Amino acid sequence: MSKPLILVSNDDGITARGIRKLVALMQQLGEVVVVAPNSPQSGKGHAITVGDTLRLSRSNIFEGVQAYECSGTPADCVKLAKHHVLKDRRPDLVVSGINHGSNSSISVLYSGTMSAAIEGAIEGLPSIGFSLCDFDVKAEMDHGEEFILKIARQTLKNGIPKGVALNVNIPTKRNEPIQGIKVVRQANAKWDEEFDERTDPYGRKYYWMVGNFVNHDTSEDNDEWALANNYISIVPCRFDMTAHAEINQLIDGWNM
Amino acid sequence: MSKPLILVSNDDGITARGIRKLVALMQQLGEVVVVAPNSPQSGKGHAITVGDTLRLSRSNIFEGVQAYECSGTPADCVKLAKHHVLKDRRPDLVVSGINHGSNSSISVLYSGTMSAAIEGAIEGLPSIGFSLCDFDVKAEMDHGEEFILKIARQTLKNGIPKGVALNVNIPTKRNEPIQGIKVVRQANAKWDEEFDERTDPYGRKYYWMVGNFVNHDTSEDNDEWALANNYISIVPCRFDMTAHAEINQLIDGWNM
Repeated sequence: MSKPLILVSNDDGITARGIRKLVALMQQLGEVVVVAPNSPQSGKGHAITVGDTLRLSRSNIFEGVQAYECSGTPADCVKLAKHHVLKDRRPDLVVSGINHGSNSSISVLYSGTMSAAIEGAIEGLPSIGFSLCDFDVKAEMDHGEEFILKIARQTLKNGIPKGVALNVNIPTKRNEPIQGIKVVRQANAKWDEEFDERTDPYGRKYYWMVGNFVNHDTSEDNDEWALANNYISIVPCRFDMTAHAEINQLIDGWNM
Repeated sequence: MSKPLILVSNDDGITARGIRKLVALMQQLGEVVVVAPNSPQSGKGHAITVGDTLRLSRSNIFEGVQAYECSGTPADCVKLAKHHVLKDRRPDLVVSGINHGSNSSISVLYSGTMSAAIEGAIEGLPSIGFSLCDFDVKAEMDHGEEFILKIARQTLKNGIPKGVALNVNIPTKRNEPIQGIKVVRQANAKWDEEFDERTDPYGRKYYWMVGNFVNHDTSEDNDEWALANNYISIVPCRFDMTAHAEINQLIDGWNM
């Protein structure tokens, strides 16, 4: 039996520690091909490069791995991988990460890591984004290893529902080992922004966006609860953004 | 009774024809404040500016309208509007567009226009993105006017369900008038990309992404069907990306 083909991408860029770890783990499970951005792409959401060119070059950053760095976004990387680099082959798994920082709750919308995974799901490929809830680039990530391997192995074996990508978040390392895995929904939380106004040396104003995370969710079936309680959270994510439950509510007032 | 406060943004930039039309229409309904990108932001998805500064300056491009141009993405514009420009006021309506080009079906994921509307919904504000299914910058858009006004008026009067933004697409102008409005779901369609490989004058390869839209949806309850049949499509969109129906399907195999 041939080894599974695993496509790896991320949003922190091809030189980040997180993707190095993820590549090393995936090498235990199959043949790894990397297409990752050549610069940090945090917060790029599901951006793609429109009306501009893309660059793609071979990288020898990972020993024994066919790797490419791309000038575009994470979504561009997966598109280039699927339709150009791996044109005649079909990955058995797409993984993105390990992101340096949480992509739980509403952050999934802004996440380049998850846009790569969702792009995989759009292509009908089993796809997973992995994020570590610690923005420190030197953060410990070994405590998540066995879970990443388990989740990837199980996905390779059983697949995941069509049209769905898994948003996996790993809690910050604590004294106790991780309690396990919880499949949960996206918490009802948001970022409340403030804008720090400053004046540049030329007298013009500029702004830094400062986000304060506010969790309005008090129940236990969501990713914020799972992470706060030292569980790995898995949120199955869709790319169908339709609010299906609200269609009938709207249909009477609007159809004409 | 005071006039409603209407925040207008877009992704084609503050100088685009579409936002000029939308501002003129909204001025019939209330007090308009504009915060829009200072450059085209098509395909930016739900990108935000992370780790970099933002600029915001007054613009006198719209007569009698408080308007600002911003160096960031559409989502940045709405965040800046909500938390800085309109800090002590609450918009009654957020509208984005009129986008030059369709944001139906899967394009909603890549759409800067819709990211502005969804950002409004995250803030709990009634929010609508308007797009015209014609990429020609000179495209006729007058045929959509009465519908844009009707949808905005009805939203101001009755609101829309919480956590939902409306994705409104207007068909290209035809000989017959628009047939009406259909509240529908996002069609099951996708972009199949090809990469046009070229060589630059210095001998290095580069790529243009060329997308071919493929519609796999054969039923009549979706936005592609509505638009093909000369209806305005309204898809209520959520920012909760959870695949709720799939949680129970996954929970047995994964929770531990």
